[in-house]
Amino acid sequence: MNQALTDLQKRDVKHIWHPCSQMKDYEAFPPIVIKKGQGVWLYDEHDRRYLDAVSSWWVNLFGHANPRISRALSEQAFTLEHTIFANFTHEPAIKVAEKLSALAPEGLHKVFFADNGSSAIEVALKMSFQYHMQTGKTKKKRFLALTDAYHGETIGALSVGGVELYNEVYKPLLLDTVRAKGPDCYRCPFHKEPASCNAPCSRFIEDQLKEHHEEITAVIIEPLIQAAAGMKMYPPIYLQRLRALCSQYDVHLIADEIAVGFGRTGTLFACEQAGISPDFMCLSKGLTGGYLPLSAVLTTDQIYQAFYDDYGTMKAFLHSHSYSGNTLACRVALEVLTMFEEEQVIAMIQQKGERMRELATAAFHEAPYVGEYRQVGLVGAIELVANRKTKEPFPSEERIGYQIYQRALAHGLLIRPLGNVLYFMPPYIISDEEMIFMIETTKETIEQFFQDRRVTVE
Amino acid sequence: MNQALTDLQKRDVKHIWHPCSQMKDYEAFPPIVIKKGQGVWLYDEHDRRYLDAVSSWWVNLFGHANPRISRALSEQAFTLEHTIFANFTHEPAIKVAEKLSALAPEGLHKVFFADNGSSAIEVALKMSFQYHMQTGKTKKKRFLALTDAYHGETIGALSVGGVELYNEVYKPLLLDTVRAKGPDCYRCPFHKEPASCNAPCSRFIEDQLKEHHEEITAVIIEPLIQAAAGMKMYPPIYLQRLRALCSQYDVHLIADEIAVGFGRTGTLFACEQAGISPDFMCLSKGLTGGYLPLSAVLTTDQIYQAFYDDYGTMKAFLHSHSYSGNTLACRVALEVLTMFEEEQVIAMIQQKGERMRELATAAFHEAPYVGEYRQVGLVGAIELVANRKTKEPFPSEERIGYQIYQRALAHGLLIRPLGNVLYFMPPYIISDEEMIFMIETTKETIEQFFQDRRVTVE
Repeated sequence: MNQALTDLQKRDVKHIWHPCSQMKDYEAFPPIVIKKGQGVWLYDEHDRRYLDAVSSWWVNLFGHANPRISRALSEQAFTLEHTIFANFTHEPAIKVAEKLSALAPEGLHKVFFADNGSSAIEVALKMSFQYHMQTGKTKKKRFLALTDAYHGETIGALSVGGVELYNEVYKPLLLDTVRAKGPDCYRCPFHKEPASCNAPCSRFIEDQLKEHHEEITAVIIEPLIQAAAGMKMYPPIYLQRLRALCSQYDVHLIADEIAVGFGRTGTLFACEQAGISPDFMCLSKGLTGGYLPLSAVLTTDQIYQAFYDDYGTMKAFLHSHSYSGNTLACRVALEVLTMFEEEQVIAMIQQKGERMRELATAAFHEAPYVGEYRQVGLVGAIELVANRKTKEPFPSEERIGYQIYQRALAHGLLIRPLGNVLYFMPPYIISDEEMIFMIETTKETIEQFFQDRRVTVE
Repeated sequence: MNQALTDLQKRDVKHIWHPCSQMKDYEAFPPIVIKKGQGVWLYDEHDRRYLDAVSSWWVNLFGHANPRISRALSEQAFTLEHTIFANFTHEPAIKVAEKLSALAPEGLHKVFFADNGSSAIEVALKMSFQYHMQTGKTKKKRFLALTDAYHGETIGALSVGGVELYNEVYKPLLLDTVRAKGPDCYRCPFHKEPASCNAPCSRFIEDQLKEHHEEITAVIIEPLIQAAAGMKMYPPIYLQRLRALCSQYDVHLIADEIAVGFGRTGTLFACEQAGISPDFMCLSKGLTGGYLPLSAVLTTDQIYQAFYDDYGTMKAFLHSHSYSGNTLACRVALEVLTMFEEEQVIAMIQQKGERMRELATAAFHEAPYVGEYRQVGLVGAIELVANRKTKEPFPSEERIGYQIYQRALAHGLLIRPLGNVLYFMPPYIISDEEMIFMIETTKETIEQFFQDRRVTVE
């Protein structure tokens, strides 16, 4: 180990197996023990602070330990923390369902609660499948998903994912998903610009639908941003084409808005920018403003009705989790949704998004090794490349992003990499000063890294 | 509808799709709107109260809105609500991991956090599979589970479940699980008594292991009680035999203690009663005392080591959920585990268990249509049968349990049925008076039901 561990760090690595981590990495880079949060800042045990530019895995919207949300949660805890949600209900769940239904794209009037994103995806997959079984389309047993898709980690969710890093080893356990090449705007095979193209790349999914539609129950997609793949962004026209194709081929469209929902792309839901309604919309992450695990699947009355019958017909959707509709999490979600109404959040995101684009463009426009800076809403991504002209990526074994991430932390900035992509996904309450710090620190860290690397390499 | 709905009930059924429910049932039996909880009681919008004898789906341990737990949660909310858990950590998670490791059966020193029971099962399945892939046993691609098993609702968890009600329709999506007939003590095919038998029924699982062990990665089991199947109980000797068989055949043992852990069976973990250590132990439900979704998978250093290597070997376990290691939920779990230490909870459970057995035996020993009253720890189950001698069950379409459940609610008691089985799984803080109310009300409700039914049937 290259530094002395604190007592808490020693105790951590003795017992905790962290998510999405090669634990051996923690020898050289031990876990940072966070003691408190405030606004965009996380404070460690030495009172060093880190600007949480990734919103703690894309969940935090209104800052850490937000007093308004914490008060709502606290009050609820002393009144009703949780109740069984079969045959029972409570006001926070009812109000959250009403608000989601009112805010979502047209037609999504039914709300099914689950606990996390993966579970929401599983609910949508199972509902879509069971719908088709119960409406006589019993050949529909497969799902269609994109290359580079990410939808979660449980076997069903992983099966529709297309990022090899996460699912390669599990292939023998996964569903036989139909895969279509997704949009790839930075390296567009049609040499188009996303702002003006007509989504010719939608032909890949069209080809698969044409061939397999009779056996396909649903297409699942991350609207506008394939996030885990490295914040790959694509234009709304692609979603419009996809919606039309799904209707044409009698296949459900599942919109996974877990990462992009709740304002992240500059509209409350990403689907709005395409003016489309999916058949299922999966929500989580920002739903509780980064406080608690909770997810929701929104769907249509038509789908709901295919399950609505006398008990003896056995058409019910029997999925449940112990904490389905958890009262505390619903109360927090209710406060978050109320803040969207009262605090002009969407306008704020758009304005801060413009500012971030201005700052980041200036910072990275001509930076060495930055192949592209791209942005939608308050998601900004820097794709590092070995060669700006050929767009040749750095070999993954060099772990360029990971090294820069470590250096940025030493400067008080948390930007978690996705391979060679660094990204900004800050809490919406980030101030101008904090945003400048985020961009400048990133710029300087990248520059310094490549300077040092050149010295080492040469 | 047979009664006027309140405003909140109308709004609920308009938008909420409840878990594990045929929503059409809600026409005749609308959802009960809970406003507050206190101790074992849930209060509805008319201030009617219900004794929560099922601990809100087996999660609540120390009563609703428990002041001690609520205070801990509230304080945490104003300090740090959540932080990303990859490369970051916090004291509540560290302390929970330490305590779980110290309290669990020997050898389970590593703790991986997830959000709900299903996700914990998926983690264990994936870890077991990947372990074998990375240690050269690449033929091991299947899991072995029992008939009547229940392990959750996501595709992987559902695949190892054996309750047809939950997984029949999804069969084309599920993994090809090896299934062995499980113990069935009430209708023992060997005509033995659980208190004295030598688990001859373990031969069914032995036969499957003998035949398939080379392709089996893990056996998964609910220790002592197959809960969702109708609180089917079986003796510790079965687990001892199974542990020996798993070691003999080089197959992991996954103990799903989600429902039975945290004192429910009279010991902190059910495995203790058999004196065995599984290779994986899945925990959730009671872990947060019924407050928040959180789960944990405990495993051995040996398994951990098979993933511990240089990053480039790609051996890491990359599973994650956004809210993995959620600070608020960990803080609540820490308080719950501290209460176990400070408040002599296990002794209290055992003493109340004896009292419940005494009361229930007196109440149901000779009751008509009660085939068996069985109990382990603070889980008591009444199996209703059409004929006590032949043990002939009531046809499921009669929904006997469901009807009694509705009637009990009218008397202020929440006992959710599993088919023809009614069960008690009260919060541990239930008072003697409340326990008497629970048992007496159940007895009277059953008697009245069958009396009325006789009138109708004859």
